[in-house]
Amino acid sequence: MPHIELPKGLPGILGPMAFRPETAKPLDELAEILLQGPSTLSPAEREMIATYVSSENDCFFCQTVHGAVAAHHLGGDEELVKTVKQDFATAAVSDKLKALLAVAGKVQRGGKQVKSEDIERAKQQGATDVEIHDTVLIAAAFCMYNRYVDGLATWAPADPNGYRAHGARLAREGYLNSPTTAEGVAGTSRG
Amino acid sequence: MPHIELPKGLPGILGPMAFRPETAKPLDELAEILLQGPSTLSPAEREMIATYVSSENDCFFCQTVHGAVAAHHLGGDEELVKTVKQDFATAAVSDKLKALLAVAGKVQRGGKQVKSEDIERAKQQGATDVEIHDTVLIAAAFCMYNRYVDGLATWAPADPNGYRAHGARLAREGYLNSPTTAEGVAGTSRG
Repeated sequence: MPHIELPKGLPGILGPMAFRPETAKPLDELAEILLQGPSTLSPAEREMIATYVSSENDCFFCQTVHGAVAAHHLGGDEELVKTVKQDFATAAVSDKLKALLAVAGKVQRGGKQVKSEDIERAKQQGATDVEIHDTVLIAAAFCMYNRYVDGLATWAPADPNGYRAHGARLAREGYLNSPTTAEGVAGTSRG
Repeated sequence: MPHIELPKGLPGILGPMAFRPETAKPLDELAEILLQGPSTLSPAEREMIATYVSSENDCFFCQTVHGAVAAHHLGGDEELVKTVKQDFATAAVSDKLKALLAVAGKVQRGGKQVKSEDIERAKQQGATDVEIHDTVLIAAAFCMYNRYVDGLATWAPADPNGYRAHGARLAREGYLNSPTTAEGVAGTSRG
């Protein structure tokens, strides 16, 4: 049961976002720019970074929603997303993305954990300054979203099909049209 | 030296914000709503929560800037801010704020660290659902800002007077008018 009285029927981050639309607006805008805005990192790559960080933070709702968005961008490859979460060094992703995931993992543990050699490795694999910036901010932002979702003890559906459907919708429509009523959410939603 | 090439002369979060204005916009808006927007928590109380979390995350720039904003709101009481960072249980603040600081400290360590009894204690001290929501989101947001500032290895001035001047300006003018050039920053700035 959530720690505070939230609108009924809205799982994960949607409950507190409907409860406090003033703060939901910049939270949605930040997610949209970082995950779907113009970038030389693909949406799939950015969603994998978000999913990995959410997994490291043990946030079930966020890792499942963003894992579903990533899998949709990857043509349904849920196994790849699973491998990225469990052991990205062995995943079938580029060496550049592996280096960026390593940076994201350091950010998750704390900003000062990121060392010059982590950044050097990413640059050697071709990462640009903007890509490194965005990786650090995606990882930092999910340290916020994950704590927001779990710090209020929001509820999350268990059925993976709901997340698949919603991940597909987010991949198509983006983060700026959050449902704020239970009718807007078909069993599950974004986070 | 910052991990990526940032605009010169802008300390702390201002460098990456000037580097990437698209993401700076929602980051500024979130800070403005949480710290200066309409609330039954005073700006001083909200800045103390932000300062405490930044201190727990060992982010020098953020804890010094927001500590200066808090002290300005408190009529210059820097000792109180210091006590809140070091041992808030002994600080001359309300029992409600102590209970909210305890919730914020749990959020800093991880969303799932927040237990029903932490929330119950805050409610017993008179905290409303919106106040609890905002405390959780302020703490979560500073886990983002702190990681953004330190994950990119931004620089921070040492001189406390610069922070005092800038804290006073932020307290008066809010977070929506970030300087994006070195001219806008008198030796230090916000974070």
